[in-house]
Amino acid sequence: MPTYNFNGGPAAIPLAVLQKTQRDLLDFEGTGISILETSFRSPPYLALHDRTVALLRNLYGVPETHRVLLLQGSASQQFAMIPMNFLPHGASADYLLTGFFSRLAYDEAQTIGNVRVAATAGANGLWMPDDELDLDDRAAYAHATLNNTSEGTEFARPPDTGHVPLIADMSSNFFSRRINMEKYGLIYAGGQKNLGPSGMVVVIVKNDLIARGRSDIPAIWQYRVHAETNSLYHTPPGFSIYLLHNFLSWAESIGGLVQLEAWNAEKSRLLYAIVDRFPDFYRCLVAPEIRSRMNVVFRLPTELLEQQFLSEAERANMIGLTNHPAVGGLRVSLYNGVELEAVERLCDFMESFALGHQPAERQRYTAELHG
Amino acid sequence: MPTYNFNGGPAAIPLAVLQKTQRDLLDFEGTGISILETSFRSPPYLALHDRTVALLRNLYGVPETHRVLLLQGSASQQFAMIPMNFLPHGASADYLLTGFFSRLAYDEAQTIGNVRVAATAGANGLWMPDDELDLDDRAAYAHATLNNTSEGTEFARPPDTGHVPLIADMSSNFFSRRINMEKYGLIYAGGQKNLGPSGMVVVIVKNDLIARGRSDIPAIWQYRVHAETNSLYHTPPGFSIYLLHNFLSWAESIGGLVQLEAWNAEKSRLLYAIVDRFPDFYRCLVAPEIRSRMNVVFRLPTELLEQQFLSEAERANMIGLTNHPAVGGLRVSLYNGVELEAVERLCDFMESFALGHQPAERQRYTAELHG
Repeated sequence: MPTYNFNGGPAAIPLAVLQKTQRDLLDFEGTGISILETSFRSPPYLALHDRTVALLRNLYGVPETHRVLLLQGSASQQFAMIPMNFLPHGASADYLLTGFFSRLAYDEAQTIGNVRVAATAGANGLWMPDDELDLDDRAAYAHATLNNTSEGTEFARPPDTGHVPLIADMSSNFFSRRINMEKYGLIYAGGQKNLGPSGMVVVIVKNDLIARGRSDIPAIWQYRVHAETNSLYHTPPGFSIYLLHNFLSWAESIGGLVQLEAWNAEKSRLLYAIVDRFPDFYRCLVAPEIRSRMNVVFRLPTELLEQQFLSEAERANMIGLTNHPAVGGLRVSLYNGVELEAVERLCDFMESFALGHQPAERQRYTAELHG
Repeated sequence: MPTYNFNGGPAAIPLAVLQKTQRDLLDFEGTGISILETSFRSPPYLALHDRTVALLRNLYGVPETHRVLLLQGSASQQFAMIPMNFLPHGASADYLLTGFFSRLAYDEAQTIGNVRVAATAGANGLWMPDDELDLDDRAAYAHATLNNTSEGTEFARPPDTGHVPLIADMSSNFFSRRINMEKYGLIYAGGQKNLGPSGMVVVIVKNDLIARGRSDIPAIWQYRVHAETNSLYHTPPGFSIYLLHNFLSWAESIGGLVQLEAWNAEKSRLLYAIVDRFPDFYRCLVAPEIRSRMNVVFRLPTELLEQQFLSEAERANMIGLTNHPAVGGLRVSLYNGVELEAVERLCDFMESFALGHQPAERQRYTAELHG
């Protein structure tokens, strides 16, 4: 029986991608050595590197106005690199506080410069609509987390920040549907959710924003330096880039982003349908219009039931269903590597579990009400 | 015919390590999923993580006074993180300029604080002995690159910096022989030379130095934060750490660091013996007492001969023999993953090549002398 992996990241990777990676691990493209041993200055590596960037540009529709950078340090390092580059003394940046990771980004930026809160999600974890944003039109940039992994919320469309460059953390919804790249000054995403590899972060950044970055900071943290060196300023995370290449080749082979987008829509539709069929049992507080297609977050009536849910799921080979420890509860992550079939099996399981436990729960509630 | 890999990094990895990694790539310790898909909060990953640190501590003799951190960003990021943490306003740090990478570290530190040059290698690329170091005894720290990859030089023993904490870039000689860790405040090394994985850097740092680090800088760049979270502050480079684990298990199985040290001594002895047998042909400027055991650097009488050497070597399946492009010439890297047999084959090749080309070269020189 296969293991159904709903991890929040590192997350499921398509089997075909893993199989190709395994098959070729001792011989990278006929060189007789592993990709793990390959010099990043050798022609076979450089060709792979350029092909990976070209595949991403092509599949994601990255225009000539933007550069694609493949960096180390994961999204968390971007929380610091962004203000380091784009928040000079005397300037201010706007942050939309929509969840756990947006607050980390905000806290990190405060160690570097002046930041303002342009919106705060309510106690229910939901954010303000565009027309309630309190934006400073002189802000150096506005930062938003477009999908909130722990809260299960997602911007249906990016917030409108006018002429202020929008910098978007898309760690958990990068490459999950088509977007209009022209609306973004910079987007970034750790690889370990929708693309496969941990240990790397993809940054897509507008050329004119790169040019405005500070040049009096360490070279290693300048977007300019990485853009000028084609992300080869220092030894790149070569295996992560190789895995990204294998993922993108697979994505191309199955029909590109249009197909992934359709699958992602269908997977989340199936899951929310089960949740909504048992609303007293699978308790999802997120309003339908801002529900994440990537992370379906819910609670059960008691923590004991949540523990039972997790153990029974594990016995059915379904893993990775806990939410971030800072938040608690359950979470189903539906990134690109999660197959439709895995979601169908999980929905079957959730239906049986609810039917098996809900009547007892109802009885208990009824007893309490009359007690 | 096997490929003999003398890459400067990413470098050769023992075949047994690659084979184990390949064999288990689709099923990490019976979990039914790949290490690449494994959550870093799951018990199997956490056990691997702790086992890796424990193996390194044990094999390398890391005392309780020091922490082992497994970070992202490669050694180049340490060039910036070190002064960021340990060079507050008003303080000064000493740098020993012994080669290309030591200068990069120095340049990067200058973007952050006050730095002094405590020694400069001469035009021949050789550095001063200890008693010619111009050390500031109030320095916040003294930084030295213990093996100079491009210059082919290595400190036989670490420079004596007295009570000033010694911070050592050991990217290219980490875990290549036994060291006395107590002499070091902090050592760091990118993984892709002596340990296997690119995309990660190992930092071994003294507890009292961690405590002295600045806490008003971004959390992601504080050693304190990584020490307090056991290098799990953010998503770790899990596959790189897994590969490190497989390498260290292999190292343990072959007899640990004592055996690697013996092999490394023998490999470099063989290679310098060939170089010294043809001193007019294989021109190594490095004095014997500071020759690197890791990188044997030499030139041939003409660049044309160097090109010929490289093409004939490649036809004999020997690759990775060019030096860093900023320096030029030839370089043989003899890191832990390079087998003794590979070095023996290369020595045979170098002997034949010298015997085949040297007479003609001698004739030309003689003709020039009398012309």
